[in-house]
Amino acid sequence: MVAPLKVGIAGLGTVGAEVVRLIETQARVLAGRSGRGIRVVAVTARSKAKKRGVDLRGVEWAKDPLALATHPEVDCFVELMGGAGDPALAAVEAALNAGKSVVTANKALLAKHGIKLAKAAEKHGGALNFEAAVGAAIPVIKTLREGLAGTGVNRVYGILNGTCNYILTRMEQEGLSFAECLKDAQRLGYAEADPSFDVDGHDTAQKLAILASLAFGTKVAQSAVYVEGISSIAPEDLRAAADLGYRVKLLGVAVRTAKGIEQRVHPTMVPKSSSIAQVMGVTNAVTIDGEGIPPITLVGPGAGGAATASAVVADIADVARGIRANPFGRPISHLHDTTKAPMERHEGGYYIRLLARDFPGTAAAIATRLAEQKISIESIVQRHPNGGAAPATGKAAPVPVILITYATHEDAVRRALAAVQRDKVISGRPQVIRIEKN
Amino acid sequence: MVAPLKVGIAGLGTVGAEVVRLIETQARVLAGRSGRGIRVVAVTARSKAKKRGVDLRGVEWAKDPLALATHPEVDCFVELMGGAGDPALAAVEAALNAGKSVVTANKALLAKHGIKLAKAAEKHGGALNFEAAVGAAIPVIKTLREGLAGTGVNRVYGILNGTCNYILTRMEQEGLSFAECLKDAQRLGYAEADPSFDVDGHDTAQKLAILASLAFGTKVAQSAVYVEGISSIAPEDLRAAADLGYRVKLLGVAVRTAKGIEQRVHPTMVPKSSSIAQVMGVTNAVTIDGEGIPPITLVGPGAGGAATASAVVADIADVARGIRANPFGRPISHLHDTTKAPMERHEGGYYIRLLARDFPGTAAAIATRLAEQKISIESIVQRHPNGGAAPATGKAAPVPVILITYATHEDAVRRALAAVQRDKVISGRPQVIRIEKN
Repeated sequence: MVAPLKVGIAGLGTVGAEVVRLIETQARVLAGRSGRGIRVVAVTARSKAKKRGVDLRGVEWAKDPLALATHPEVDCFVELMGGAGDPALAAVEAALNAGKSVVTANKALLAKHGIKLAKAAEKHGGALNFEAAVGAAIPVIKTLREGLAGTGVNRVYGILNGTCNYILTRMEQEGLSFAECLKDAQRLGYAEADPSFDVDGHDTAQKLAILASLAFGTKVAQSAVYVEGISSIAPEDLRAAADLGYRVKLLGVAVRTAKGIEQRVHPTMVPKSSSIAQVMGVTNAVTIDGEGIPPITLVGPGAGGAATASAVVADIADVARGIRANPFGRPISHLHDTTKAPMERHEGGYYIRLLARDFPGTAAAIATRLAEQKISIESIVQRHPNGGAAPATGKAAPVPVILITYATHEDAVRRALAAVQRDKVISGRPQVIRIEKN
Repeated sequence: MVAPLKVGIAGLGTVGAEVVRLIETQARVLAGRSGRGIRVVAVTARSKAKKRGVDLRGVEWAKDPLALATHPEVDCFVELMGGAGDPALAAVEAALNAGKSVVTANKALLAKHGIKLAKAAEKHGGALNFEAAVGAAIPVIKTLREGLAGTGVNRVYGILNGTCNYILTRMEQEGLSFAECLKDAQRLGYAEADPSFDVDGHDTAQKLAILASLAFGTKVAQSAVYVEGISSIAPEDLRAAADLGYRVKLLGVAVRTAKGIEQRVHPTMVPKSSSIAQVMGVTNAVTIDGEGIPPITLVGPGAGGAATASAVVADIADVARGIRANPFGRPISHLHDTTKAPMERHEGGYYIRLLARDFPGTAAAIATRLAEQKISIESIVQRHPNGGAAPATGKAAPVPVILITYATHEDAVRRALAAVQRDKVISGRPQVIRIEKN
């Protein structure tokens, strides 16, 4: 048998400790699957004293991540510290430049420096594996990189952030506000004290940039992703969506269009019957539309120590088996630049919720403004708070009007709504949610 | 760059022709992903004259599958003929014995001769890849073999036959009988003229045996799978299931129990809220319960030329990249024998539908027989055809009685129902459907 793969782990939180535990308890299975043993030879973390429930006797404690990354005994450097900058960046780069393989769960690092790191891997022959960075144990990286090796991808989209999906699920099921659900999510540990990274869509954007690169051969770049979060979603949007046969999800969508690859994160109406609409709570899911084949949907835990560790250990096993895939599926020289998708040129259906000041006259005014922009209306619903008929005069309270459009351009929608606002026939700002068909 | 991988394809039906087309049209992407070119150098099929819509000029026509399998120019033999016996068996064996790699979509061959073939692959160093054999383009083989390399599996189950799921979906949605839906499925090309291989569960059993081997390290053996088909399912079962919060699916289930690995295929009640219950029509799905992590569900097309070809080409790309996984995830010497699960010892909840001759007295009689076997009843529903109260005497028409039990042993259920039949308080045979919790 070949010599065992010697692993160094930087970062011993929940995930790191579970990786150590799995490598030990699953040793025989891992050796069987990889054709060689896997052994943790050195580790490092902020606190050496912390109790972690795993046996680290016989494992060297490196003085810092950089020392571990370049440790002569380490074949495979496992980075579980997180963060887009140092020490993660410097350590991963040093390991790759030393010809070692790297396994990481660090989406921020990849979304920001993925190309630079992939270049170092390509140049020095090490692997750069990151299954855990997107969807934890859901094998979406492997599926895009290897499972669909010969199949073109038209679209990849998914629920990539459990916090947002938990909040939207509770809002829908219990009719609660965004703020109430966020507070609960924080209490339950599903959301951070500063929740903006999750609820404003940035976490989803980092993951989407990685998926888009693998699917379309674009250079991974978080800055190329259009981002909108979920904080403006109101319970009435979720009720209206339900009435119309939709659910609202925060989706990351990367899609091939005539104008190039569109990458966008925003609250999205999806048909209630679609696979992605069934995904509730903190669960994540990704759907891949391959050329000429029906969609493939992968559903599972998108976070959590055990699920993340499962993916990290599988990546280590691939290194042990000698697999050296191109990190983003193709040689760097094949990857092309991405520019930020201009959302004004986005084409699709729209959900629009307005507060009409005086319904009878307003409906005509709104319809006229939409018609001027050649926007066709699939359905229009007015909701009188008292369930009665429209008031005859403009003295009553504003009445919600909900419109669903056929496919149109976003700039047309924006122009039409700007005109409606100038007409002063509505109260407040229009709510707009994009519709994604399956 | 390394020399291209030279591929020989036996069988040029819809799948084979699509494989040829993908290798040609995706040449650059495949080379980028694999690190080397992939070239079809020789083919064989029953008819050389048939129009296939692909360009085979410059490709050698081998005189038969065996000649192709041992062709000195061929590095990777792709078997797309099907069938558990020759010529597929002889050709695959010959290719492996010659040290070549093999890619096949042939579930029957693997379920029957998988171990023999894996031994040949192990001995001579070739790969034996078969992603397309289960769930076509759904990457379930790769997920079990590589994606969960270090995570123990407690259960794997799925909808593995599109024909059965199509029939059950239509029966449920339109209240039609099994026979009517089967006829439609045949008309639409979803079912064969002789449908028994699909509807009696044998197709599912072959696929399940393959999944069980990868999940649990058992020697693949179709004969170890308990099999029941869907032909006895009636529309009233689907209605009752819906009322009780379930759906009926033909599942293949492989599960680790205290008594060993249980492998079984049967109509199954699954909670309507589960991921697997959402899968409708010809779509397939597999759920994997890994140790310590929430379930992962993979959903997608389980058949079709393009979907199958997509998986075959990905397997070829893995061969080109030099990946040589153990066919069943572990060395042959690590695989253990399987015995057929004795269903009498199966533990779980049961749905039981009886036709009671005289309800008031009968309910007591049935309850007594179940109590004798220590079976606890979760719910009992009687359905009077006229919606009225139970008749006071035994003169009325039989009344359906539907019972849901708490977890119990199958032999207890069988003994109780045999006693109920001896009591002559019911008409006809009881309908029994096992419940699978998520």
